[in-house]
Amino acid sequence: MVEPKYITSKDNPRVKEMKKLQSKKYRRKLDQFLIEGAHLIEEAIAHGQKVQSLVFLEDYDHGEYDAHGIETFIVNEGVMKTLSSLETPPGIMAVVSYVPPETAGRRVLLLDGIQDPGNLGTLLRTADAFGFDRVILSRDTVDAFSDKVLRSAQGSTFHIDITTMDAAEAVQQFDGAVFATDLEGATPLDAVEAQAPLMVILGNEGRGVSEMVLAQVERKIKIEMPGASESLNVAIAGGIIMHHFKA
Amino acid sequence: MVEPKYITSKDNPRVKEMKKLQSKKYRRKLDQFLIEGAHLIEEAIAHGQKVQSLVFLEDYDHGEYDAHGIETFIVNEGVMKTLSSLETPPGIMAVVSYVPPETAGRRVLLLDGIQDPGNLGTLLRTADAFGFDRVILSRDTVDAFSDKVLRSAQGSTFHIDITTMDAAEAVQQFDGAVFATDLEGATPLDAVEAQAPLMVILGNEGRGVSEMVLAQVERKIKIEMPGASESLNVAIAGGIIMHHFKA
Repeated sequence: MVEPKYITSKDNPRVKEMKKLQSKKYRRKLDQFLIEGAHLIEEAIAHGQKVQSLVFLEDYDHGEYDAHGIETFIVNEGVMKTLSSLETPPGIMAVVSYVPPETAGRRVLLLDGIQDPGNLGTLLRTADAFGFDRVILSRDTVDAFSDKVLRSAQGSTFHIDITTMDAAEAVQQFDGAVFATDLEGATPLDAVEAQAPLMVILGNEGRGVSEMVLAQVERKIKIEMPGASESLNVAIAGGIIMHHFKA
Repeated sequence: MVEPKYITSKDNPRVKEMKKLQSKKYRRKLDQFLIEGAHLIEEAIAHGQKVQSLVFLEDYDHGEYDAHGIETFIVNEGVMKTLSSLETPPGIMAVVSYVPPETAGRRVLLLDGIQDPGNLGTLLRTADAFGFDRVILSRDTVDAFSDKVLRSAQGSTFHIDITTMDAAEAVQQFDGAVFATDLEGATPLDAVEAQAPLMVILGNEGRGVSEMVLAQVERKIKIEMPGASESLNVAIAGGIIMHHFKA
């Protein structure tokens, strides 16, 4: 049993250190990130993530957690508000290092320049639902370990092998059918069939999949839209495509 | 040609009046709402919406707009920042009264208690893409004319007949096949076929479709999820279902 440490000052060096994890730069540097709320923390523990520290608000019922032998801090409301990115902090946070789960990787989602954290989180959650267990992020895709992305991914972050690498290189290295969304010369999704291993590529919210990546892809697909809207949100398009190619 | 009026004070009564439209209460009361950016305003004009006033930042090139004979205000940066809900205001806003377009209504989306503005906006955009030209909002669904919803709907608001009414009543009145998402006793979407007229019902982000509404529906559908995630975001589920039943 680890004895919890009490922290009552925002200037405490450990608090300052944890607060730094609100920025992508320090998340990368320290290879750690923050998660909030009992559900996410339970998912992290259940799926083999390395929980470095737990932080509880002083009146939070934390009985079941300290059994894990994890370094534990108990903080007052002021400190919790400093660390939390929510208006109403749930009262429980953790510092975690990402441990990519071992997955078969027979269904891969490649995200080429996704900018909106909500879109990325939703795409991770949707990939997880349809058996896409490996997600590759291009270097210009938003960070998967920010508070917003983690929240909208709802724990799927810990079920999926998430890697960041050059998108064109990821396509070259992949051994299977590769599909990218494109407007020109594309086949309607409903007319396409494929067996795993397969990779689906989705592009940036504004410009779509980059030329560099499209140049590597033979199979272009599109979602037919009989209505008046000219485009779909990228997470919606991804949902429809991954549902089509689901495990 | 309407001569523009210059406003340089946030305390100007017209500015105060327009600012009130940031709250749902006044949008309802005055039957007006605010839209921002050239794209949304062009869509509103092109689709028969009643544009009551236009507001331009003083250095905005507004040459092409005053031809419409619409009351026009030119404001300074301070006033624009007061009216805008964006950190970087696009420099053009409008006060609009909603004119529901006349649509066939053969594909209807009924939203029963959607709470997230981004979800509602994305659902409107997606409905529009797949030929669902009537969207009914239950009384406890978030307002469709808030800034966030309008922004994520990307103009689809003006292509769709959006009405608010009692959800159970809407089901009773509808003459066609009605499908609601449910977890128990539901048929997998892929096994379901239907011809228009049809209605798709999606429920609240947390609790799903309400009991009151489900009691009116015979055909329950579900999206099969072979992966590890237990649920889909409601806009993603809606995207997959509307794509399945598209025009």
